[in-house]
Amino acid sequence: MDFIEKLKKIINKNDTLLCVGLDIDEEKIPKFLKNKKDGYLEFNKKIIDNTKDLVCAYKINMAFYESLGLDGYKLLSDTIDYIPDDIIIILDGKRNDIGNTAKKYAKSLYETLTCDAITVNPYLGFDGIKPFLEYNDKCSFILCRTSNPSAVDFQDLKTPDGLVYEIVANKIIEWNKKACCGAVVGATYPEELKDIRCNLGDNIPILIPGVGKQGGDVEKTIKYGTNKDGSMAIINSSRGIIYAGNDTDFADSARRKAKELKDEINKYR
Amino acid sequence: MDFIEKLKKIINKNDTLLCVGLDIDEEKIPKFLKNKKDGYLEFNKKIIDNTKDLVCAYKINMAFYESLGLDGYKLLSDTIDYIPDDIIIILDGKRNDIGNTAKKYAKSLYETLTCDAITVNPYLGFDGIKPFLEYNDKCSFILCRTSNPSAVDFQDLKTPDGLVYEIVANKIIEWNKKACCGAVVGATYPEELKDIRCNLGDNIPILIPGVGKQGGDVEKTIKYGTNKDGSMAIINSSRGIIYAGNDTDFADSARRKAKELKDEINKYR
Repeated sequence: MDFIEKLKKIINKNDTLLCVGLDIDEEKIPKFLKNKKDGYLEFNKKIIDNTKDLVCAYKINMAFYESLGLDGYKLLSDTIDYIPDDIIIILDGKRNDIGNTAKKYAKSLYETLTCDAITVNPYLGFDGIKPFLEYNDKCSFILCRTSNPSAVDFQDLKTPDGLVYEIVANKIIEWNKKACCGAVVGATYPEELKDIRCNLGDNIPILIPGVGKQGGDVEKTIKYGTNKDGSMAIINSSRGIIYAGNDTDFADSARRKAKELKDEINKYR
Repeated sequence: MDFIEKLKKIINKNDTLLCVGLDIDEEKIPKFLKNKKDGYLEFNKKIIDNTKDLVCAYKINMAFYESLGLDGYKLLSDTIDYIPDDIIIILDGKRNDIGNTAKKYAKSLYETLTCDAITVNPYLGFDGIKPFLEYNDKCSFILCRTSNPSAVDFQDLKTPDGLVYEIVANKIIEWNKKACCGAVVGATYPEELKDIRCNLGDNIPILIPGVGKQGGDVEKTIKYGTNKDGSMAIINSSRGIIYAGNDTDFADSARRKAKELKDEINKYR
């Protein structure tokens, strides 16, 4: 099954655009799990058990796992194994390199770690993106307009053909011949999101971080980020959901927050 | 000792600007090592033993290690441990993320893996770079003008204040208050290298990949990439050196190639 088909199927099954970010953070994880053997894995498993009927995807930001060293790599791989087969797994590593090397990243993410989708940084241009697109049953989400305040530094530079992020969006359309490209656009910039969705049309998925802790408005995000069917958008929240509670009932708190956000999203679809 | 001091010291000691890229590649490593237990580590150790008096730095591209999974992580860490203390270790991961997450990458690279320098992708702007710069005894080399053909796609876009990579170079100067920034500029674009060195002045180091297999001209690279003292440039070659031979004498072949390139570089300094 290719990515778009899998995405549509899970969006329909769970009636949701919500993606939960499994960003393990030693500073935020409930204390009773922090020093327990396999406590981090237990945390992820409980979050997954308690949210798997509410989400279309889990996003795993690799930075949080890398910072744990060898144990983090194992945790990453065990977490991937635990996620039910019909839910989209997005490895958010924002990888990028020249062609010969990007090929290795593509292999490591899509083959060794077996995920459905990844995030990729476009700064190196097409030959750094191409090796990812060769996995054409997967989806490579290319950073377009990110959710952070300094996104303006380079992404908003004016060129004769539009702003830099608009040029990136145009390239995504050009590169999407085999329907295996997506875009990353932050919920914190609704006007930019609107323009990008308009430009990308109805068939390219957008991964949208930035609601929740980062403050993106849900109504605008859904109105501007989804396609004509109220779909093709994956709305991520990480910290706001998984660290909603920090005691033994953390997974219930996470479920409550996830349910709230799912319902709020659906209200505007 | 801070990064610039360490760099100057090793450049003087070994009289060299050469950096060898330890890009372990299962498709290129000598066959007799490929299926041997710890064969990859043996490969790296032999390359290090045979080149450590010829280099100022080793660059480790993380993609090659990540593609080996858990074993690759162990290999990366063991290789770092084996490199002599006075030689610069550059972890080339081109990492990037929003502030809260970039902090985790910075920790993982500078603390967990203990290197001297890293490469960083600038697309997310300053708040994604800042956490790396907080390690101000280290050096974060920011991708400016990369060595690959598609570098033109976004890096050469025209803006009212110059090309995108020129804006990145200006930002590197602005961000370099604590002398912990460098730039990555490909040897395959000598004119751009010349402009960037001119702009950066004499005190910001430039990491220059692209000589060797990628075809960058050594004379122009040195003439345009070094500062007024013929220094502050780190010239990387990976495949052209470490895979010069593929039999039991591979390390001798690597040494020969490294010596040739070192001498050629010094001829033009």
